Amino acid sequence: MRNFKIILQYEGTRYQGWQKQESTQNTIQGKLERLLTRLAGAPVEIQASGRTDAGVHAYGQTANFHMDTKLSPQELMERINEYLPEDIGVIAIEEVPERFHSRLNAKGKTYRYRVLNSSVPHIFDRRYVYVCPEKLDVDAMKQAAARLCGTHDFKAFTSAKRSRKSTVRSLDSIDIERTGDEIWFTFSGNGFLFHMVRILMGTLLEVGSGKRRAEEMTALLENGKREEAGPLVPACGLALMEVRY
Amino acid sequence: MRNFKIILQYEGTRYQGWQKQESTQNTIQGKLERLLTRLAGAPVEIQASGRTDAGVHAYGQTANFHMDTKLSPQELMERINEYLPEDIGVIAIEEVPERFHSRLNAKGKTYRYRVLNSSVPHIFDRRYVYVCPEKLDVDAMKQAAARLCGTHDFKAFTSAKRSRKSTVRSLDSIDIERTGDEIWFTFSGNGFLFHMVRILMGTLLEVGSGKRRAEEMTALLENGKREEAGPLVPACGLALMEVRY
Repeated sequence: MRNFKIILQYEGTRYQGWQKQESTQNTIQGKLERLLTRLAGAPVEIQASGRTDAGVHAYGQTANFHMDTKLSPQELMERINEYLPEDIGVIAIEEVPERFHSRLNAKGKTYRYRVLNSSVPHIFDRRYVYVCPEKLDVDAMKQAAARLCGTHDFKAFTSAKRSRKSTVRSLDSIDIERTGDEIWFTFSGNGFLFHMVRILMGTLLEVGSGKRRAEEMTALLENGKREEAGPLVPACGLALMEVRY
Repeated sequence: MRNFKIILQYEGTRYQGWQKQESTQNTIQGKLERLLTRLAGAPVEIQASGRTDAGVHAYGQTANFHMDTKLSPQELMERINEYLPEDIGVIAIEEVPERFHSRLNAKGKTYRYRVLNSSVPHIFDRRYVYVCPEKLDVDAMKQAAARLCGTHDFKAFTSAKRSRKSTVRSLDSIDIERTGDEIWFTFSGNGFLFHMVRILMGTLLEVGSGKRRAEEMTALLENGKREEAGPLVPACGLALMEVRY
């Protein structure tokens, strides 16, 4: 069987996230598997680098699937794009060794969260930003971000139920940059827990608006209490930018 | 009565264009007038710098309306944005002298047409580009564009029925720029005829793909025959960027 690695873009607005579910046909994995199964004439499973939640976008989600086909990778990509809905697209494809696995081989990921820091609407990007018109102190948020980076137990920053799985992750960087009336928060790390970026964002925005101090991050990491971290911000501002191998 | 000048952004996809019509409620002017009339408690008419066709977008449409209100311009803008649908927004407002008229006082306009020159989809900008994956010769299109600029009778480049109105316009510049896998065509002039930018675009794309030569532009301007110019390209790639006063 041939193994194909694809890079996917999708607008998450209409979907119940990446992962297929019994209860709905409306997931990105579900759409892709039904299409690939139809093209192959036999069941095809597709594996992504990780789930994205309902409403989260992707500029560079990576996935792989095994399939018997005589098509070249380029032909296969064109065929897939022909049948995909307009808010999902394959932007790159390559044939990879049998053993390549998009989740197990992933070394790191980058997410971006876009905040529209203005009450003036952005019509063309309205589905890709979170509107927060409050005055935000970028320097204070950068100080908090510096304290969050590194290898820590991020238990306070996940909605995952307690389990025996490790909640230690390495957060390499959080870049915070004002571009026009938006603020872009770019998170790079070796892996992210369920809701981790959105809870980190909720916490950083509380620092930005003066509701809490940058210094509190250290205690939050230490005590690991979800209820003491900030709120979960909306999915619409979040996008998976890149997966590194 | 106070006179307000507003700058509007809208995504044209869902609308039957700017101008209100008896047959549909679904125009941008219609939406705005119903909202302003409700806010004022008396009929308000709104005048734009010019119509945009069904499906055409605006980054900087300018309009004005007369209204009695005690609100400051900023308050009025917030109130309007609160009630507008999410694909229309006011991005600037100012109070102007009674005599200001957004159409009659307009000195020039800039339109941009975006061509996605690739078969790889752009998921996030899919509603704002025209997909044309054919190989395009940008230099040949620039040569054709140079021949189209200046003060000419653009009769061959409009869908308007013959009338006694002048079809002479001054086209100041057509900038053609490749940015990534898109080509942006930026048209500036003192005024544009019905469908003019989209027929100019259809003609330029025929030059770009080698179907006609840049030199033919001169004859097209001289003979004024619509049927000899290129096709009308889709509205989705077009946006009114700016109106100058």
